[in-house]
Amino acid sequence: MYELGVVYRNIARAERATADALANYGSATVHEAMGRVGLLKPYMRPIYAGAQVSGTAVTVLLHPGDNWMMHVVAEQIQPGDIVVAALSAECTDGYFGDLLATSFQARGARALVIDAGVRDVKTLTEMQFPVWSKCISSKGTIKATLGSVNIPVVCAGMLVTPGDVIVADDDGVVCVPRARAAETLEAAAAREANEGAKREKLAAGELGLDMYKMRESLEKAGLKYVD
Amino acid sequence: MYELGVVYRNIARAERATADALANYGSATVHEAMGRVGLLKPYMRPIYAGAQVSGTAVTVLLHPGDNWMMHVVAEQIQPGDIVVAALSAECTDGYFGDLLATSFQARGARALVIDAGVRDVKTLTEMQFPVWSKCISSKGTIKATLGSVNIPVVCAGMLVTPGDVIVADDDGVVCVPRARAAETLEAAAAREANEGAKREKLAAGELGLDMYKMRESLEKAGLKYVD
Amino acid sequence: MYELGVVYRNIARAERATADALANYGSATVHEAMGRVGLLKPYMRPIYAGAQVSGTAVTVLLHPGDNWMMHVVAEQIQPGDIVVAALSAECTDGYFGDLLATSFQARGARALVIDAGVRDVKTLTEMQFPVWSKCISSKGTIKATLGSVNIPVVCAGMLVTPGDVIVADDDGVVCVPRARAAETLEAAAAREANEGAKREKLAAGELGLDMYKMRESLEKAGLKYVD
Amino acid sequence: MYELGVVYRNIARAERATADALANYGSATVHEAMGRVGLLKPYMRPIYAGAQVSGTAVTVLLHPGDNWMMHVVAEQIQPGDIVVAALSAECTDGYFGDLLATSFQARGARALVIDAGVRDVKTLTEMQFPVWSKCISSKGTIKATLGSVNIPVVCAGMLVTPGDVIVADDDGVVCVPRARAAETLEAAAAREANEGAKREKLAAGELGLDMYKMRESLEKAGLKYVD
Amino acid sequence: MYELGVVYRNIARAERATADALANYGSATVHEAMGRVGLLKPYMRPIYAGAQVSGTAVTVLLHPGDNWMMHVVAEQIQPGDIVVAALSAECTDGYFGDLLATSFQARGARALVIDAGVRDVKTLTEMQFPVWSKCISSKGTIKATLGSVNIPVVCAGMLVTPGDVIVADDDGVVCVPRARAAETLEAAAAREANEGAKREKLAAGELGLDMYKMRESLEKAGLKYVD
Amino acid sequence: MYELGVVYRNIARAERATADALANYGSATVHEAMGRVGLLKPYMRPIYAGAQVSGTAVTVLLHPGDNWMMHVVAEQIQPGDIVVAALSAECTDGYFGDLLATSFQARGARALVIDAGVRDVKTLTEMQFPVWSKCISSKGTIKATLGSVNIPVVCAGMLVTPGDVIVADDDGVVCVPRARAAETLEAAAAREANEGAKREKLAAGELGLDMYKMRESLEKAGLKYVD
Repeated sequence: MYELGVVYRNIARAERATADALANYGSATVHEAMGRVGLLKPYMRPIYAGAQVSGTAVTVLLHPGDNWMMHVVAEQIQPGDIVVAALSAECTDGYFGDLLATSFQARGARALVIDAGVRDVKTLTEMQFPVWSKCISSKGTIKATLGSVNIPVVCAGMLVTPGDVIVADDDGVVCVPRARAAETLEAAAAREANEGAKREKLAAGELGLDMYKMRESLEKAGLKYVD
Repeated sequence: MYELGVVYRNIARAERATADALANYGSATVHEAMGRVGLLKPYMRPIYAGAQVSGTAVTVLLHPGDNWMMHVVAEQIQPGDIVVAALSAECTDGYFGDLLATSFQARGARALVIDAGVRDVKTLTEMQFPVWSKCISSKGTIKATLGSVNIPVVCAGMLVTPGDVIVADDDGVVCVPRARAAETLEAAAAREANEGAKREKLAAGELGLDMYKMRESLEKAGLKYVD
Repeated sequence: MYELGVVYRNIARAERATADALANYGSATVHEAMGRVGLLKPYMRPIYAGAQVSGTAVTVLLHPGDNWMMHVVAEQIQPGDIVVAALSAECTDGYFGDLLATSFQARGARALVIDAGVRDVKTLTEMQFPVWSKCISSKGTIKATLGSVNIPVVCAGMLVTPGDVIVADDDGVVCVPRARAAETLEAAAAREANEGAKREKLAAGELGLDMYKMRESLEKAGLKYVD
Repeated sequence: MYELGVVYRNIARAERATADALANYGSATVHEAMGRVGLLKPYMRPIYAGAQVSGTAVTVLLHPGDNWMMHVVAEQIQPGDIVVAALSAECTDGYFGDLLATSFQARGARALVIDAGVRDVKTLTEMQFPVWSKCISSKGTIKATLGSVNIPVVCAGMLVTPGDVIVADDDGVVCVPRARAAETLEAAAAREANEGAKREKLAAGELGLDMYKMRESLEKAGLKYVD
Repeated sequence: MYELGVVYRNIARAERATADALANYGSATVHEAMGRVGLLKPYMRPIYAGAQVSGTAVTVLLHPGDNWMMHVVAEQIQPGDIVVAALSAECTDGYFGDLLATSFQARGARALVIDAGVRDVKTLTEMQFPVWSKCISSKGTIKATLGSVNIPVVCAGMLVTPGDVIVADDDGVVCVPRARAAETLEAAAAREANEGAKREKLAAGELGLDMYKMRESLEKAGLKYVD
Repeated sequence: MYELGVVYRNIARAERATADALANYGSATVHEAMGRVGLLKPYMRPIYAGAQVSGTAVTVLLHPGDNWMMHVVAEQIQPGDIVVAALSAECTDGYFGDLLATSFQARGARALVIDAGVRDVKTLTEMQFPVWSKCISSKGTIKATLGSVNIPVVCAGMLVTPGDVIVADDDGVVCVPRARAAETLEAAAAREANEGAKREKLAAGELGLDMYKMRESLEKAGLKYVD
């Protein structure tokens, strides 16, 4: 239920330092810090392992088999943005390859998140331009139908509003609404602060059962041990 | 159809040396040696390439969205075990991350096989703690409902009894019942014994048609060659 | 609707130099050069990243759970061929492992494309024998039922005729009919000729909107910019 | 990226007469009248054939395995509403059965659209309470976690805002934004107005090629006839 | 991990009256009465709507593409049994048609539950022999490989032991272990006893919120109403 | 690898009487009579139960989201034909509704088999125009790109040549090559001739084990009975 044929040029981006800092915590910690919401469906996978990024969302709505608007969104990219591409109906075509990646990278984009396919993944990997996509496909697209740029879109089941923060890594892609970016960063930092201590204890053989004091609640819930 | 809320502490594990030795042959050879049974469904994939392990199964039954019992099973791990996690209903959440992996590794676990999702895969890869899973997801879980530990479970379509041997590598995951572990090891070794000779012949250009003397049976079956 | 139990020994292969040269352009460019046809379904994935090959198709029709004909097709391989294996019904078994790969490689095969599973992928990776497959599975197969060799087959949704050119890389697998191989090579080369110039411009920050002169047609189509 | 734990009691519903009238045109005509947007993914299927309804959306966000909020949303139903249930993560459980249907029906709900499973479908069919769902499952749910009522939700890939019009029949489910309901009704009526005449001509053997005057454009596009 | 080539003739069936009585409650109520375990995966669907049965399980393990053991299991059927067919690997072939159904019906079987395909569904519907299956397929099978009869099997993700009670209807298929059949029947009856009263209240417009006294716990959990 | 933009007007259809007679035997018997080949993938399902047809194939190749060629193929229909629609890439859109069905029916088409979606299924059911499709979707299509008519196509995994016989019923869709139609009819008739006698015996309680004399071969294969 999308507005078609429109490009919003001025969007309110999440504060830059916050958007940048979220990458350090990764999608799993950020997802926890959000209260376990905001995750795009887990079929979204990185085209190569190891990338971990965050940035502000510029969005684009595409139609099946048509990547015309990818060129339109390119102009709206500012350094630190991540392009989030949604589809008006399911499609597995390869909407994005090395030429568009060169353009996106030149404009300052940090990544692409697309609910469809991409191609030239070998070159994209060499360029170290990370993409999270539904699939990989050689199949190209035409340039015939108008979509929109910087409208709220549904990408892989999640509502993404332009200016939201996207956090993506090997575990998946999380969307943090602009209004919650600061508090999420704080919560993520707090969450991670005492992880080091926990990890040391666990590495020393201490059990989560004891560290988290679960034995009593498990017993209350009726857990029985049988020798 | 599972017994809920119970932890079996004493399970009969397959003999250690046998369980350890099976890793050398890999899942494909062991699967053949078993008579082509015991394979978990092929949607179970390693989170990184190259790991090849075997070990004795300790099992855990989890509920959708709830990883409470992962902490309970941690206590039951003995060195050389592989944790096999089954679900009471389908779920793609990330039940397991770097903290639990640290704990499992400290207890001596060699791997996790889970019919659901995991997260922190970048860290798990750095830790070299191998996991075979149905998917990868940032989505965390709660700790509210009792499952069980060391009951027979169905994981990725295969019945796994605590103490069975698990063999896992890039080709998949096989379960060898404890009672058949010794004979399977023997069969796997026998199978592999003459593979070297075969490989040399094939590398020299000899055809399987001749090496396996298939020409006659193919002709009997009615195969026709057309020039 | 396949002819069963027959092996065609003499097939008209695409011209060698043309078949070899197509690898340089990769599956995406070749797919474009063909007019966006010829692509096998995108569920076909390479077992390891980075391989990029082309070659002439020798085809084999297999039955579920039965790889007998893989030994028959081995004899029909000539240097520069790629084996294309189709199934008479869906199956995920592992039809092909390191022994067959040794044989195929010795005969001069460059790759296998199979609409089913393969195994021994760690060894295949070490051997650098590339495979594009539907899945990976430890499950072996029997040798009991006749299929055919070098008949036209449907592999991953695409009709492949023996002697066609197969182009495969990280983006997928494309089939180029023998009769169109020369014109496709030419079109691919033409396509790539001016890609370097485009890439430079895009890298310098020029927009596709301007480079491809899209602004007018977008405006005609009704695109509106909102500040 | 949902607001959790909140119930909006006052929502602006689409005008009643408009919302009611859209049912007459069915989801396919309404989808066309909207410009081919607004369709929920086609995996949403009716539990029985023949129902054709429209109504105003009241929305509910549910968590996997938890139907607590279904009781909360029941109170917010007004006659002529259709409940649209979204999930915070994928789940196939049966969230809704004959008791809830009795309650919904008593409150005046016309249907349920749910991106998960339902049960008691035999009784629901007897009650003639139509449901469009992702699946059918006997598996019940618990009541433990807060979602929200009457927030914008993503259901089967489509953004649904409370008060929008839902049109559902054997062909699928379409969401018409409140602001576009009147114009969509008009467009749907116009579309259908001349369908009767077209149907008669086609039934008499006239070809669409002639009726829609396509022959020239097909020829221009290069279509060739071969005898 | 199945024992192959064996037929167990004497199995301990659940008590007849109990097995028969469970049909009255349907799969959803029985699943609840069991504590929400025992459900086969929801991809198992009836070939026609409206059948509601229960009976004692006789099991059969089949291989892909081979229905030989269906004839072997026919002999083991006693009146009131339901045949549960599991597969050693995934397959969509049509293992069962009108001839086997005639035989099963003559032996007293009430239904077939099969984790694969069936055919002749029009005739099966006319015969009113209900089947729950993964799919429907014209593709027939051969008779070449031994499976087993009346061993514990995994069917659609659930462990079924011969003699267990199967309850199946439009909502799905539930397995009740023999040892729990009596208590489950009791729990199901208790569950249903007060459903009539509840239904009347809900039909009169009373809310589940009040009937189940949920308002306080919702408030405690933090639910907020916004006007 | 399809020829685009061409309509073959003169195709060699299978002999009419043979094509018509095959409907009597149904897809399962015909599939057996063919030697278990020719079946379209089982995801092809009828939009309503009970239709059983056969006819000569006229084929059409469509592009994703574009049904222009459906109007072109309409002109090529002759009484007794079945339209077989293939896609150049996967798509779930609704390519066909009641207007096109009116036209096809007026031209004498008996059915549509389409590897994509259809809509207006309620009206199609009332018209008794049977369709076998991959899915049902309200989503309409545009008319912009040339495909072809009466070229060989791959539909749901099966190669269909214009003039072949299509047999479709509740069990699925089978393609019988024109050259094999007569022999297949004969084989189907022979197959069914003695089914009546078999059915009577089985209904009387005789076992397939005895009727087909399987006991000896089962024993030879090693089947053991345990009391």
